[in-house]
Amino acid sequence: MITSRSNSQVKNVRRLLSDRRFRYAEEAFVVEGTRWMRELAGASIRPRALYVTAAWSNGPEGRTLIAQLGVEPVPVTDEVMAAMSDTETAPGALAIVAMEPRPWPAAPSLLVILDAVANPGNMGTILRAASAAGADGVLLGPGCVDPYNPKVVRGSMGAILRLPVRSATWPDIGELTVGMDVWLAVARDGIDYTVVDWRRPSAILIGGEAHGAGTNAERAATGRVTIPMRDATESLNAALAAGILLFEAARQRATGTR
Amino acid sequence: MITSRSNSQVKNVRRLLSDRRFRYAEEAFVVEGTRWMRELAGASIRPRALYVTAAWSNGPEGRTLIAQLGVEPVPVTDEVMAAMSDTETAPGALAIVAMEPRPWPAAPSLLVILDAVANPGNMGTILRAASAAGADGVLLGPGCVDPYNPKVVRGSMGAILRLPVRSATWPDIGELTVGMDVWLAVARDGIDYTVVDWRRPSAILIGGEAHGAGTNAERAATGRVTIPMRDATESLNAALAAGILLFEAARQRATGTR
Repeated sequence: MITSRSNSQVKNVRRLLSDRRFRYAEEAFVVEGTRWMRELAGASIRPRALYVTAAWSNGPEGRTLIAQLGVEPVPVTDEVMAAMSDTETAPGALAIVAMEPRPWPAAPSLLVILDAVANPGNMGTILRAASAAGADGVLLGPGCVDPYNPKVVRGSMGAILRLPVRSATWPDIGELTVGMDVWLAVARDGIDYTVVDWRRPSAILIGGEAHGAGTNAERAATGRVTIPMRDATESLNAALAAGILLFEAARQRATGTR
Repeated sequence: MITSRSNSQVKNVRRLLSDRRFRYAEEAFVVEGTRWMRELAGASIRPRALYVTAAWSNGPEGRTLIAQLGVEPVPVTDEVMAAMSDTETAPGALAIVAMEPRPWPAAPSLLVILDAVANPGNMGTILRAASAAGADGVLLGPGCVDPYNPKVVRGSMGAILRLPVRSATWPDIGELTVGMDVWLAVARDGIDYTVVDWRRPSAILIGGEAHGAGTNAERAATGRVTIPMRDATESLNAALAAGILLFEAARQRATGTR
């Protein structure tokens, strides 16, 4: 039982949460909460370490999940869990998980490319939407937030386990999308997204929240696509735009029609 | 020029930001930043008060916007603006705007109904998406966050000016949706959203982030709709789900086809 906030394991978790370089040196990241424990169990991923409160581990789902995760849990007090957690309402369970990126697909048919998406909530939502819509991978261009940032991990809800996610330079991105249509999402003056043939090998390129797409992103694109707006809305949130385009691609692929 | 944080106008703005009852007693809310000033100017709305920093009012866009807004700006120091602002990076301009809800449409064709959507970021994104997709109005059921909450206002970016938004009880919601298809969004086992005929008068019912749809929402629905997911994703973010359904409705209405 860990009862002190100054325990070295508490410090280790906090550093994994706050220090990107430490995460990559350790090749590990932190996940929190019952839903994430379910994601790990569902993907048969055994965490490096599992910290639990008494209330959580004695609950019915806690018992089952601990058995499924196959690792000896470390009991901690509620105070220690609150000190370890990145969230305001501390969870009952927290785990350290090894970074094991999914291999990049040989012949992707639907990709997402992010250009300087710096808002962790947006990136988390986009990863979750990409996974749910059946995308084959996500390329993170320069200036993107770390996908193992705790706020991204929270929003992505397991997508990082299922979806190949790869940081890349613009020349890399060019090579990885050879032969694909690369559609830059723009707020106006692009082709109507419902007219685009998303059944072709396609990549959806989303610009950053602050400044939109940069020069490199403009150059990487083979076309520009717009979600028509029925009013004076300047633009949609980046994550919402990505989700709408992804599910239109999924719809066309499922129904076989534009 | 206001130079002191203890000036009564500073206190008034802070109270409008933080105190829901005070907002409704004053029938006023606070908007911040250049984009919001553009929204006000575009909608020909003259704010009750306009506070500006020297840097903003002397910038080229500041001058133009001040002229368009048609109200004498009150200069404030950067420190006072930081004290007034709800955001971490204080804006150059902040305004107090009268609540003037748009009249409820007589024969709405596309509505959104929110059930206990308590996350202000989600509500802001949903209002923006509803406005952009051409919805006729949004009904806020019990347990929803206040649409004039500063975080909702920030995320909704002017949608509250363009879109009828109305708080309502469940009996009210029943009366306001007579004759419409009311589709409850559920994570699984509903009808595929691309098969639904969204050209009919339709309402999209979105459950809260914490507990999904409540009993009243279940009862108000005439059908259940699901966005099929290609992987083990448990559910989509509430705002993303709302956006995908809204833009599928807009797509069907624009193209005339399912």
